[in-house]
Amino acid sequence: MSDLQRLHPGARYSEAAIFNGTIYLAGQVANDGSLDIQGQTAEVLTMIDDLLAQAGSDKSRILMAQIYLADLADYDGMNRVWDAWLPAGAAPPRATVQAALARPEWRIEIVVTAAQR
Amino acid sequence: MSDLQRLHPGARYSEAAIFNGTIYLAGQVANDGSLDIQGQTAEVLTMIDDLLAQAGSDKSRILMAQIYLADLADYDGMNRVWDAWLPAGAAPPRATVQAALARPEWRIEIVVTAAQR
Amino acid sequence: MSDLQRLHPGARYSEAAIFNGTIYLAGQVANDGSLDIQGQTAEVLTMIDDLLAQAGSDKSRILMAQIYLADLADYDGMNRVWDAWLPAGAAPPRATVQAALARPEWRIEIVVTAAQR
Repeated sequence: MSDLQRLHPGARYSEAAIFNGTIYLAGQVANDGSLDIQGQTAEVLTMIDDLLAQAGSDKSRILMAQIYLADLADYDGMNRVWDAWLPAGAAPPRATVQAALARPEWRIEIVVTAAQR
Repeated sequence: MSDLQRLHPGARYSEAAIFNGTIYLAGQVANDGSLDIQGQTAEVLTMIDDLLAQAGSDKSRILMAQIYLADLADYDGMNRVWDAWLPAGAAPPRATVQAALARPEWRIEIVVTAAQR
Repeated sequence: MSDLQRLHPGARYSEAAIFNGTIYLAGQVANDGSLDIQGQTAEVLTMIDDLLAQAGSDKSRILMAQIYLADLADYDGMNRVWDAWLPAGAAPPRATVQAALARPEWRIEIVVTAAQR
């Protein structure tokens, strides 16, 4: 069994943990909270791309995505960016619910679990 | 390590991903949003039964269930159906919180992680 | 592949499931709902310590922590206790969102996934 690795460990959280070929990412949120839902979603998905690359995976290998929206009115806007980002045939299981996020300017947070290559 | 499989892959999401003997289901919601909490819970649990069977597992092998209720007033009604559905000795870890769901008629969404046989 | 084990199985839920070296804990909440956020967080983290010990792990091996706060006004109070509890270099990925919890006196619920030693 491969032992546990962490990416970008900080005092409060790490950006990722890897164990047994499975990657657990921290909830990803936009750096630029002034963006609209499409902008924030695009930024979050780019962060996920980067972290998955660092963890030895990519967006075709996501096992589950938990999506939190601060306002479900953003559901269609999020989906436009999400659908365009996904590789053909590799859409992961997901669940989307509304929840207030830790900073009021954040409109979306995504938690991803993925498989290493 | 067994490679990643997906069940019912669509353009936006798949119903399940399987990796390394672990099954990740998409959040399950009722097809018939006119049902009350007991009816929607029963429908969701039947969907979970079906997907777990397709993935080579069953309800005795659930590792975690995340339950979202649109209204915590439905907590007791959900539990009546949940308790009756569970096999003896095989209740999984779970967490239940309130969250608005993507369609206003949905009263419950359940996200399941399970083990293959 | 190690087979599935459960800790403290009840009629409605188990406190933990263990499969393939990975530990899934039920959402942990305070026994004493009269405590403030720091007291409830401390109690929840002690429960997590105890369950991880029973499952053959400890807080240095958490893979993901999903934190639900009934009120995001408790974010800083939760973090004070969280930061002090973490071992150096072993902070896990986490996500924190606001959600109403099953009992109105509960201020925090934490769902942990961890790796066995």
